[in-house]
Amino acid sequence: MADLELIHELLTPAQTKIALLVLDGLGGLAVEPGGPTELEAAETPNLDRLAAEGIVGLHQPVSPGIAPGSGPGHIGLFGYDAIRYQIGRGVLEALGVDFELQATDLAARGNFCSVDAQGTIIDRRAGRIPTERCAELCAELRQIALPEVELFVEPVREHRFLLVLRGEGMAEGVADTDPGHTGVPPLDVTVTDPVAEAAAGLVRRFVEEARERLAGHDPANMITLRGFAKKPDWPLFPETFGLRSVAVAQYPMYRGVAKLVGMDSVEVGPSRDDLFDTLSRVWPDYDFAFVHVKDPDKAGEDGDFDRKVEVIEEVDGYVPRIVELQPDVILVTGDHSTPAALRSHSWHPVPFLLWSPTCRRDEADRFGEKWCRGGEGGLCRSEDLMPLALAHAGRLAKFGA
Amino acid sequence: MADLELIHELLTPAQTKIALLVLDGLGGLAVEPGGPTELEAAETPNLDRLAAEGIVGLHQPVSPGIAPGSGPGHIGLFGYDAIRYQIGRGVLEALGVDFELQATDLAARGNFCSVDAQGTIIDRRAGRIPTERCAELCAELRQIALPEVELFVEPVREHRFLLVLRGEGMAEGVADTDPGHTGVPPLDVTVTDPVAEAAAGLVRRFVEEARERLAGHDPANMITLRGFAKKPDWPLFPETFGLRSVAVAQYPMYRGVAKLVGMDSVEVGPSRDDLFDTLSRVWPDYDFAFVHVKDPDKAGEDGDFDRKVEVIEEVDGYVPRIVELQPDVILVTGDHSTPAALRSHSWHPVPFLLWSPTCRRDEADRFGEKWCRGGEGGLCRSEDLMPLALAHAGRLAKFGA
Repeated sequence: MADLELIHELLTPAQTKIALLVLDGLGGLAVEPGGPTELEAAETPNLDRLAAEGIVGLHQPVSPGIAPGSGPGHIGLFGYDAIRYQIGRGVLEALGVDFELQATDLAARGNFCSVDAQGTIIDRRAGRIPTERCAELCAELRQIALPEVELFVEPVREHRFLLVLRGEGMAEGVADTDPGHTGVPPLDVTVTDPVAEAAAGLVRRFVEEARERLAGHDPANMITLRGFAKKPDWPLFPETFGLRSVAVAQYPMYRGVAKLVGMDSVEVGPSRDDLFDTLSRVWPDYDFAFVHVKDPDKAGEDGDFDRKVEVIEEVDGYVPRIVELQPDVILVTGDHSTPAALRSHSWHPVPFLLWSPTCRRDEADRFGEKWCRGGEGGLCRSEDLMPLALAHAGRLAKFGA
Repeated sequence: MADLELIHELLTPAQTKIALLVLDGLGGLAVEPGGPTELEAAETPNLDRLAAEGIVGLHQPVSPGIAPGSGPGHIGLFGYDAIRYQIGRGVLEALGVDFELQATDLAARGNFCSVDAQGTIIDRRAGRIPTERCAELCAELRQIALPEVELFVEPVREHRFLLVLRGEGMAEGVADTDPGHTGVPPLDVTVTDPVAEAAAGLVRRFVEEARERLAGHDPANMITLRGFAKKPDWPLFPETFGLRSVAVAQYPMYRGVAKLVGMDSVEVGPSRDDLFDTLSRVWPDYDFAFVHVKDPDKAGEDGDFDRKVEVIEEVDGYVPRIVELQPDVILVTGDHSTPAALRSHSWHPVPFLLWSPTCRRDEADRFGEKWCRGGEGGLCRSEDLMPLALAHAGRLAKFGA
């Protein structure tokens, strides 16, 4: 299969533009045998028209049977092999709170937890303390002074926080201290790679002082740490694909993943109008825009089939806002399936449509799983979508003579 | 995915024969929204009957979104991963002019170009000199004497020529001298691999003497060289697949690619009758015959939709000539798509039909993109077709117990 290097070598200049609209968790399931999925049930005249004029298909994130998180789901859509290009847990946590990771940062996901008098974990989530309490305790931990590094302790949600050590010599290779279950103490701070000894020494000091400062703050009287990771050094999206690229997304996580691969990102107001107004505003300055809509995934996670249908219909109403920008290629899909019936991300392939004047139209005249099956796009890998979009945009030269 | 080694291990003896008919550039596009592709528009009763009795599908050359050249297109049909098995530019050029490469040959693609008094390239193609003029200049360059190697300089077309150094120690690793654009002199002869120092030294002498001999022969007063390559050392098709194999093709390039993977090849007269007469003549001696028809690709490159339809219909009239030979498997497809609407090779998947008594028939009763979509063959990789043909020919044993 083509890798990023091969695609990069084939780039050919073109004054064309690509719009990628991601409806998070778009793929779904019927709630009764023979019934429609959320997308099939939705009235989507604008998406249907694009499907009729373009091609449709299903894409498989990661690998068959695998339900991806938001990180791998988007990494695949951005053209990267999600198994080869994995985002460390600590880095994902940083992206989720809009923390600007620098090259010298070592990040980890932290949990406040509850330990008994012997130091044994009795609740890995400290009773899911309120986020406000989490913020207070993070402020307390931020007082810890470590030599030669700058320390960041940022609240995430409930018992979750982000730990970042910023300084020269902070290497990956610090092991998790979270044992993953109760009945044992947090694990000692050790290394999986000797290059991380210096970092591990500082983390050890941080953990010990955290234990002292949290004593008596029950139920959040201790911490565990996992997923120590640095910002990855990957081929960047704009250079790899030759596209001036921007993320238009309302949630930090999605802006963050896009920034991780080098896309620009813009602040967006909270409404749907804000999202598409922002797209229109930045569109002239870019060749590629990634527009992210979170709501279908949220409705799916809530198990609310009808709400997911409504949200998809609402987004359909905004599709003309993309069409009027006259992209050369419009790609509409999800990063994964989130069937309301399962209330979670799932492994099911995700419907996509690709509109372009150079499409070999298939028979599909509606957008939805049943019409996507058997479309010209077949059942492809998520990371095939970017090369396909580039080809339809006239941006890939012939391979070999 | 299965590789050549695995397929080879599974070979089981059978007295069966496979015919592969390649209509070059077969895949197409509609010229108006909702209209037929070239193949869909063509009246092809004989191919339709094979499609009805067999299976159909689409195959994707190289990787989604990638438009292959003739080399990678055929390498894929022959069962090889076209990304792993890449044919060097110099070798392709040799194949195209029926030059019999030997193991000690180092081949390069040459261009006559125009340089000004300072040696700066002002036209990379020397005004596309006539092929006759190219032949005269090649004869001139052939006079250059290099120590310890035999030199070949063969005209190709217009400003293009083939350079071959034949001798012990000629290694790959000589860098291109073609800078790829005007406004600079040709690049010095350097190496990308130190093992090529000896070859680079001789190429340097050749280039210097070429400069002297071409001085005053404006516009073709200099040369550039690129794609230095040797005949690859690949697993051979007849051994890998256990098939006595022959190429029946009228164009040197296609005979050449087939010979590169070890197939026999025969001279064929210029007419369509010659092509199928030759097939009938050699058929008894082989288990596998590759029959190549160039015309659909030419019509596509010319942007002539109607001519491409006609050519496909003409070829359909010869399909009974294949059927009467009673192959156990008949595979009909293209090496890539060449839609008249795009006047070039394209990335679009290519329709195929596979006829055999052991096919699990699908619903398709005509041959064309819209019927191939959703056929039993699905959307597969080009290199999957050979294992599929071998299986239907009863030539692959069970994998594992």
